[in-house]
This record gives sequence, structure tokens and C-alpha cells, in this order.
Amino acid sequence: MTKSNIPQVGIALAGAGVVGGGVLKILRERQADIAARIGAVLRPVAVAVRDPAAAQKRLHPKDAKLIVADWQAALAHPKADIAVELIGGGGAAREFILAALARKKPVVTANKSLLAESGAEIFSAAQRAGVPVAYESAVVGCVPMVKVLRESLAGDKILEARGVINGTCNHILTKMEADNIGFAEALADAGKRGYAEADPALDIDGWDAAHKIALIARLAFGAAPPFSQIPVSGARGMDLRDIKHARDLGCRVKLLAVAKRADDSNGGAIEMRVHPGLVPREHLLARVEGAMNAVVIRALHSGETMHSGAGAGAEPTAVAVVSDLADVVRQNGALSAVAPESEAVLTPLSEARAPHYMRMRVIDRPGVLADCARILADRGISIEAIRQDESAPQQRVDVVMLTHSARHGAALEGAAAIEKLEAVVHPVVVMMMEGRDGHS
Amino acid sequence: MTKSNIPQVGIALAGAGVVGGGVLKILRERQADIAARIGAVLRPVAVAVRDPAAAQKRLHPKDAKLIVADWQAALAHPKADIAVELIGGGGAAREFILAALARKKPVVTANKSLLAESGAEIFSAAQRAGVPVAYESAVVGCVPMVKVLRESLAGDKILEARGVINGTCNHILTKMEADNIGFAEALADAGKRGYAEADPALDIDGWDAAHKIALIARLAFGAAPPFSQIPVSGARGMDLRDIKHARDLGCRVKLLAVAKRADDSNGGAIEMRVHPGLVPREHLLARVEGAMNAVVIRALHSGETMHSGAGAGAEPTAVAVVSDLADVVRQNGALSAVAPESEAVLTPLSEARAPHYMRMRVIDRPGVLADCARILADRGISIEAIRQDESAPQQRVDVVMLTHSARHGAALEGAAAIEKLEAVVHPVVVMMMEGRDGHS
Repeated sequence: MTKSNIPQVGIALAGAGVVGGGVLKILRERQADIAARIGAVLRPVAVAVRDPAAAQKRLHPKDAKLIVADWQAALAHPKADIAVELIGGGGAAREFILAALARKKPVVTANKSLLAESGAEIFSAAQRAGVPVAYESAVVGCVPMVKVLRESLAGDKILEARGVINGTCNHILTKMEADNIGFAEALADAGKRGYAEADPALDIDGWDAAHKIALIARLAFGAAPPFSQIPVSGARGMDLRDIKHARDLGCRVKLLAVAKRADDSNGGAIEMRVHPGLVPREHLLARVEGAMNAVVIRALHSGETMHSGAGAGAEPTAVAVVSDLADVVRQNGALSAVAPESEAVLTPLSEARAPHYMRMRVIDRPGVLADCARILADRGISIEAIRQDESAPQQRVDVVMLTHSARHGAALEGAAAIEKLEAVVHPVVVMMMEGRDGHS
Repeated sequence: MTKSNIPQVGIALAGAGVVGGGVLKILRERQADIAARIGAVLRPVAVAVRDPAAAQKRLHPKDAKLIVADWQAALAHPKADIAVELIGGGGAAREFILAALARKKPVVTANKSLLAESGAEIFSAAQRAGVPVAYESAVVGCVPMVKVLRESLAGDKILEARGVINGTCNHILTKMEADNIGFAEALADAGKRGYAEADPALDIDGWDAAHKIALIARLAFGAAPPFSQIPVSGARGMDLRDIKHARDLGCRVKLLAVAKRADDSNGGAIEMRVHPGLVPREHLLARVEGAMNAVVIRALHSGETMHSGAGAGAEPTAVAVVSDLADVVRQNGALSAVAPESEAVLTPLSEARAPHYMRMRVIDRPGVLADCARILADRGISIEAIRQDESAPQQRVDVVMLTHSARHGAALEGAAAIEKLEAVVHPVVVMMMEGRDGHS
């Protein structure tokens, strides 16, 4: 399983709950894949957990073997090159990170509250140590805010970030509007679906969104006001009546997190706030559904860009942690700057599967529609919908068919056969559809 | 203007048209800013252009001084550390890049056709030279596809990329539907607005989208089929009738670019295609308006993420070039891994400006509405809309007001004054709105 010809990077992991378990799983199942992509093997060497006995049972046997007595032991492992902190909160998490930095070990952490509330201490220690603290997973899960703000927009001046960045609140507000139910009922639903913690205060009172926007502001503006000063109000107690009034005004209610440069006249100050607010229905942020997160960035030269995805959840967060590990390895120079080239085989277009739109211009006479449907059925293509405009007999009229997922080649053959019908007067228009059948 | 205590990085620029001019402008106007962000001064040292006499007049005097005889001279400049190719097309652009790589100089290029069609030659040369070719600006403008696919999702397995990635086609298709006009008329409109080139074939026949999806596929899957094999059809000649039928089916017509892993049974082949297709109206890709670009990525662990922004245009492309320069400098180790920490001043929430939603529960009697409006007017707040549900006199009823952009502090004062009115029976609900007034 190990490859002796590429560098091995040892990972000391503190915390192996849902996210930590996800990280171990990805590193175990996709090690060769990741090694091929990043040019180094990411190898867990020590895992510190609060309850070793319970973790022994819960973790995969290969990972369970790595359990050590405590985080100090994990950090002291002779092959530990990078420290991954997934304990959460302050206390041990903070001590572990500071101890790792004192040993000049790069740190990867998903700990948004610690970085948002005590980031200055952590980042200063990292700077003194001259090693990176990578925290993409702490900002908006797998939505790459660190990359976008620090690197993609390095040449631009960022003016504003506005986000819908708490999945729990967004699920609740979406649900209230869709099902015409009150806050308490929608919160209970979020709990049932696993979108709300047993103690949902961190989410529904706005603190999770505040942690995220604090980190975004620091990345966007290179500075952030003290966390305790940010005005924060959550979605708790939202009245269904206001959601309805907002809808009548062409808007939706979202839990908004905003960070923007104030006017120049204000001396380079930063405006920050987290609160329920209205968004016009046609705006990008109004269209963020359920537990998704989205951030719109406005910059001087590049205008508005938007990034959305799962903002939380074990797997998306674990992916962001692993990607941060890859990034740390890259920064340490273990990676080649360019990936090797290879060619791939193209699947013939005829093998592509999708629902198909077909439009035929026909002379309206009895049986034409049946003939078209029969031709498709003979090729194994089932029809989801047929529409025909009203017309007088013998007039030319459009017939539109929407098929269920079908091979493109079969659809083209069907179209060619339909074109041969006497009543069909023009070539048949054929278009594939994306986005209806999940991932067809 | 120069800072002697931080590294100076010399830039040799080939091509100074709209994008090149934009790069020079950003480097000139925001040099100190960028230096503070990335820890190095990016300094143009030589500029090669096709027509030096014309460029002398067109460029800023400081940049015009840097004009040299030809690209060979630019590359030979003793202070040229990084080569930036903005000539476009094949020919000289390809020669310039290969010559730079032969000299082991990192390359930044925005040349999507060259990389999509002859990428293997360029990337192999880069690998032999051991220096990077950075090309974020060549993929989807300032939408960070390279970063996302190569770095943010390094820990994930990418399954599929689907995009609306040609602004010209998207503008035309959006315009046809919105204004009920034919293809030719919408194309003329795109030309007038600067969204279509004098020869629009590259865009409307789908080649620009094909170049982009070819680069995306290479990043996503580490391999791409030969460009010439990709099935490509554009939006040229789109029939308004099909756009209307699609609308009746709850869909919109978009120029789609798709790259996905084919079934495992297919031996790791890749499905790629560019064509007009239907997208359900509620899907993210259906909501990409006008000249915007968007890409939805589906990956094994992180699910769907979406990235959108300006896919073309001089300024967004120039920003992506400058960000690539910063990235190359970072890869070369000139940058510190951590940025210095600083604190910022928070603007008081009362100074935030936005349209405000106010909902008051009142006893319906003549004059209540006028009193509320007067209270807001006295505080300089103008009202965009008032809604009051029908009710019997003396019944309790909701009055909803939507204000134009106003200071939050003034809105809160207004709400407090309204609450004191005898007819108002509950606390007034106040929410700010984002996204209506442009960037208020």
C-alpha cells in the first residue's frame, strides 16, 4: 500500500468524532488517489481521542491501532509532520494548536469558534513559528473561501462579502415558507433531519454565522474587528407572518452575514452584521435552498462572484481538511509544480444519457402523434410529456416531446425516423436536458 | 515607490491589448496594496506589442517606457523573472511560452485556445523545465476553477463539471427569451453591448465554451481527450420557438458544457459535450443571467458546489492574471505562509445603510398609516411601498412598510416612535434588506 518513491507525510490527529472519522476514512480509502494527485502520501500516525475505549470500537481497525493516550502523545509521535485539530471549542484545542506551533509543526484545523474568537493569538503564534495554520474547513465547509479571498482575488480589492452561511437557519426559514409552519415546528424538523444540534443555540442565535463572517472579513480585508463587537441576531423566534409579508414584497427572509468596507470617509472601518433580512427573490442569495451555504463577494475589478456548496456536514468538512493537508504539503515544497500529463478516452456522444427535448413541425392530422410516440417506444425511449399547440386540422403545428433519460444515439435515431414521416415538414429539433434527473 | 525591503519580481509581458493593458493598470495603481497582500512587489520590466507606435500612444507613459522591440527582447530582459503571455492564439504566443519555459521562467497565460488545443506540449515542457504554467485567467475568467479543482477539492474525487460558460451565448439566449426576439436580433444586441466580437464565431459556435470545458476536464480528471474529438455545437441559429416551448416545460435553454466520468464499466472514459440544452428553471444553472458564467462541480464527498462570476472581460481577466502572478511568487517561496495580523475598527450597526422592512400591528383606524409615514419622514426616511391587509375598522391588522435605503439607527428610532402610537399594539418588527439597491 505504501509507495516508497514518493514522500510520506505523517499526520497527528487530535479528535476523531464525525469529522475526524471522515478524515481518517478518506485518507484510508483514497490514499493512492490522493497520492497520485498531490505527489505525497498523507499517512495518519497518531490519533488522540477523549474516550479511547469508545473510539477503539467506533473506528476502523487500522485507524484504531493509531490511538494514543492523549494529544501530547500524538504531537510527540516521531513521524508526526502535520497536526490536525478536530477537537473543537477552546481549552484542549487551543493548547494542542499552540503546542504544535511551538514545535514548528504546520496545523490544520476546522475550529471556527476558536479562530474567530481567538484568531489573533493563534495566527501570531503561527507567524512567529513560520509555519502555516490552514483552516479552509473552518470557514464555510467545502466552499473555498480561504482560497478565493486570499489567492484568487489576490490581485483585486475586495469590497464586500455577503453570505447565507448557516445551514440550520436556512433550512428552518426555507421550511417555514414552503410548508407554512411556525419557527418551533420548523426547528423540530431540522432536528429530525440532523440539520440542528441537540443544543441549537450556536446556529439559531447566529453565532455560527458570526464565526464564519469574522473569518471571511479577516481574509477579505486583512483585518477584523474584535469578535465580541459584531452585532449578531439569529433566526430564533422568526414570525411566519413576516416571511409571508416578505413574499408579498417579492422577497425572501434569509439569515444574512455581511462584512463590507465602510465609506472611505469612515477611515477604513468595517461594517459587519449577522441578522435575518430580506433579499429580493431574483437575487442569488435568495435562491440558496435548505442546508446550502453561499457567499457573494464583490471586488473592485472582478465584480461579483458567488460560491456555494455544503457549508457543514462530516464529509464536506473532512474533504476540506484533507485538501488543507494537501495545501500544507504543497507549501512545504514537497509537490511538483506541475502535474504529469495524460490523455483520456472520450465517450462517444451517442452514449451520453439525458432526458431529451424533441420538437417536430407536423401537419395536424389524426395519428401523427401516435406515430411519433411509437417510433420512440420502439427505440426504448419513454416519454415524460407531450405538448401540442391547438390548431385547425391539416394546419402546421409544433409537437413537443420530453423524454425520460435516454441514450443520445437512440434519440437521434428516433428523430431521423420521425423526420421520414410524411406529416413531418421540418427537421426535428433535439436537445438534451441537464439537471432534472439528479445526476443522469 | 519601490520598497527595498521586500522582494521585487520582474514581469516580462507579451501582448498589451485590453487584458494586457488591464494588467499593467492594476500593477501600476495597486502595487503597494498587492505588495502588502502578497509580500512581494510585482514590477513590469518589459512589454512586447505587435504595433509599438500605436501602443506608445495608447499605454500609460510609465508603461509605454517599457516597450521593447519584440517578445524575444522582453524575455531576454535581465530582470524578467516571470513571463506573461497575453498575445492569444497559436503562433507567437506558443513560441513565447516555450521559449520562456526553455529559460526556466514561470509562465502566466490567459490563452485558452492554445492550452485547450495544444496543452500537452506546453504542460510537458513546463514539467521538463520544473516551472509552473499558471492559467486561471484562461479557464473561466475570475471564477477560480484551477484553485477549486486542483486545490480545494484535492481530497475529493470529482465526478462531474457542468457549466454555463460562454457569456455571449448566454446573453443572446437570455435576451431572446426576455424580449421575445430572434437569434439574429439578439446577436446584434450582444454586439452593441460589447458582449460579442466582430467575428462572433468562436463564441456562438461553441468553441470558447469547448476550450473552457477541456481545461476544466483536465483539472478535474487529470486527463482530457484530444480537443478535436469533443462534440461541440453552439447557440447559432437557435429558434425562438424552442425557447418558448422550453419555458412551457418549466425549463430554460442554456449553452451547456459538460464533462463527467463515464460509468466505471466504461473503463474510466470521460463524457464531454458542448450544446444548447434545457435546464429546469429551478436549477442553479438556469439562473445564470446575461453575460455571467457558472460551473457546478459534483464530487464524491463534498456533493455539489457552484462557482459563478464574470467569465470574460478585460478587468476580471486581468485580475486573474495578477492573482496567478501572486500564486507563482508564492510557489517560489518568496511569500510568508502567514499574513501579519491586524485589528480593524467596526462601524456601529446604527450607521449601516439599507432598505428597511417594518411591520407594525395596528388597530385599523383612519390616520394610523399617515402617522407612521410622518414619523419616518421626520427622520429622513423615504418609503418605497406600504401594504395594509384589508380589515374591518377597529380590527387589528398588519401594516408593512418598505423604505428606501436608510440608516439603521434612524430606522430603529422611527420604529421606537411608532411603537408609542396608541393604535400600535405590538413591538415593530424591523429587518434590513440586502441586494435590492445595488451595493447600498
